[in-house]
Amino acid sequence: MRDPLRVAVLGTGQMGSGVVRLVLEKRGLELVGAHGRRRERVGLDVGRAVGLSRDLGIALEGDLQRLLERARPDVAIQTTCSRAADARDEIETLVRGGANVISIAEEMAYPSQQSPRLADHLRDLALEHGVSILGTGVNPGFVLDLLVIVLSGVCARIESVEATRVNDLSPYGPSVLASQGVGLSPDAFERGVADGEVVGHFGFPESMGMIARALGWEIERIEQSREPIVARVRRETPLVTVEPGQTAGCLHRAVAIVAGRPAIQLLHPQQVQPEREGLETGDTISIRGTPPLRIEGRPEIPGGTATVALAVNAVPRVLDAAPGLWSMADLPPPAAILGDARALLRFDGSPG
Amino acid sequence: MRDPLRVAVLGTGQMGSGVVRLVLEKRGLELVGAHGRRRERVGLDVGRAVGLSRDLGIALEGDLQRLLERARPDVAIQTTCSRAADARDEIETLVRGGANVISIAEEMAYPSQQSPRLADHLRDLALEHGVSILGTGVNPGFVLDLLVIVLSGVCARIESVEATRVNDLSPYGPSVLASQGVGLSPDAFERGVADGEVVGHFGFPESMGMIARALGWEIERIEQSREPIVARVRRETPLVTVEPGQTAGCLHRAVAIVAGRPAIQLLHPQQVQPEREGLETGDTISIRGTPPLRIEGRPEIPGGTATVALAVNAVPRVLDAAPGLWSMADLPPPAAILGDARALLRFDGSPG
Repeated sequence: MRDPLRVAVLGTGQMGSGVVRLVLEKRGLELVGAHGRRRERVGLDVGRAVGLSRDLGIALEGDLQRLLERARPDVAIQTTCSRAADARDEIETLVRGGANVISIAEEMAYPSQQSPRLADHLRDLALEHGVSILGTGVNPGFVLDLLVIVLSGVCARIESVEATRVNDLSPYGPSVLASQGVGLSPDAFERGVADGEVVGHFGFPESMGMIARALGWEIERIEQSREPIVARVRRETPLVTVEPGQTAGCLHRAVAIVAGRPAIQLLHPQQVQPEREGLETGDTISIRGTPPLRIEGRPEIPGGTATVALAVNAVPRVLDAAPGLWSMADLPPPAAILGDARALLRFDGSPG
Repeated sequence: MRDPLRVAVLGTGQMGSGVVRLVLEKRGLELVGAHGRRRERVGLDVGRAVGLSRDLGIALEGDLQRLLERARPDVAIQTTCSRAADARDEIETLVRGGANVISIAEEMAYPSQQSPRLADHLRDLALEHGVSILGTGVNPGFVLDLLVIVLSGVCARIESVEATRVNDLSPYGPSVLASQGVGLSPDAFERGVADGEVVGHFGFPESMGMIARALGWEIERIEQSREPIVARVRRETPLVTVEPGQTAGCLHRAVAIVAGRPAIQLLHPQQVQPEREGLETGDTISIRGTPPLRIEGRPEIPGGTATVALAVNAVPRVLDAAPGLWSMADLPPPAAILGDARALLRFDGSPG
């Protein structure tokens, strides 16, 4: 069997730390380096940097170019940002250094939708250097797009698809709560939407672009709305108290128009303590078509755990992929790595 | 844009007819031929042969070799059988004739599990001739395997997976009802299981092989049981009456043992009129792991429609695939073809 698959991780925040710890668990993967942007942490042992109680004998590297030269990763997992424009520099360095790239930046799930020129540039660079780039994550990247696409495979005809993700913001920190307008008056919520402080979910255009590309639809335009979820009862978390009449969160909705009709509708109401008003968290996908379909998962697939797992489980996929820029719908479906990761590579035309 | 993708269909039974009709609906696909085994139908116009009220100007061909030479299909869809051993001759002819193959034979969903030598042979032949072979279908091929695999992608760790498909046999004909032991006494059911007349579901080893291969598990053995579903109330269809105390169907269960533990459990209770005893039809997947997952779809994904759609929607996938023998877990996920099928090919390393 070939040598272990060499993995480097960019970022040691919550996601990056989770990725490092999961890479260490997986047979056939070898953590060869980690990159941190914060100067004061450079040189720290990566084990300590990600909250383990032991040293790994790998120092956190502050210079990405040097990490590539020294560690020669087969795959680098980027956990440092959300925007494609912010992800770009690191990805370029990785690709030029010969590493395949997995990014959990939301906009990298399908950069062609909002940044077609950047997507073309990264694709061309990947082709030039013979590596592949994959964007992944729970949402965008899985629940509201890949699952919809997979389910569509059993349909002969489809009129429209709708997917809803109901979650609970209670575990999240102040910046996430602010981004969803939790604890505001409805008026302040509307002002927050207008001035860009209440942003809602980050990823609808990417999910819609993925779905449309996979099914062969052409999106004419995407309409989005952000409405306050007004609490009828008191909701309280360690960080925030929402009185009745205040906003418990944001109902973010997006509709993609295809051939003049609303073809894709995605809803992501995010709020604290939905259960206080009898609302269960969960993921639901409905397809109007032949046959009609409806599947539900309760509670919702938890975002953080799932994103970390998707990123690590994608390592054999990007190594197998043809050079290029890919979405989760372009590569064989993700699967948990439960044995040796090297055995999941598919080089020889054999499923056996 | 390239010429339409040339599709031939083998078999004009219920599945084959559905495939022909759906191919005709899809932009970018061209039906170039159909093969029938029954001599008395050879020469019939394919439109009439599949129940359309119009001629297609294509005669049903009885000689597969001649069909290949005359029609030069890019892809042939085989709908003629369930067993890999029965599928083999036609697949060999197709591969030698340069056609990519999509088969809905249940055992072709993952022939490596029960027929590893045949699978190796077909893979080598496909490699030699530069084409790809894909097995697909709703079950095996989608509900109890591909969906399980896709969902596993969000898991960091998995202890076990369980999937259940509850359906209603009422629409099916006498041979299907007999294969599930409908209308027998419990004693006669047990004798039917012993002598092989009551077979239950056809495809558990294939589904388990697919799952294990995708996750990196090694199956030590598969244990199967077939139990009578004894009616407590009268159930009646146009074909059969089941009195209380008689069997309404077969509860077929399979367990795959991995590392000494039951790791995969699949259940497929098949019966007439489950709703008469308050049982809803549906598909359920549960994963014990990190995170735990549970998704449900009600009613179940309908088998016939879904299998036809999966076969047709797979056409761009087998054309894109590297030469070899592939399962649904090896290729990019299926997706409904809603635009031009040619636009769904991914040759150039670009998702855009």
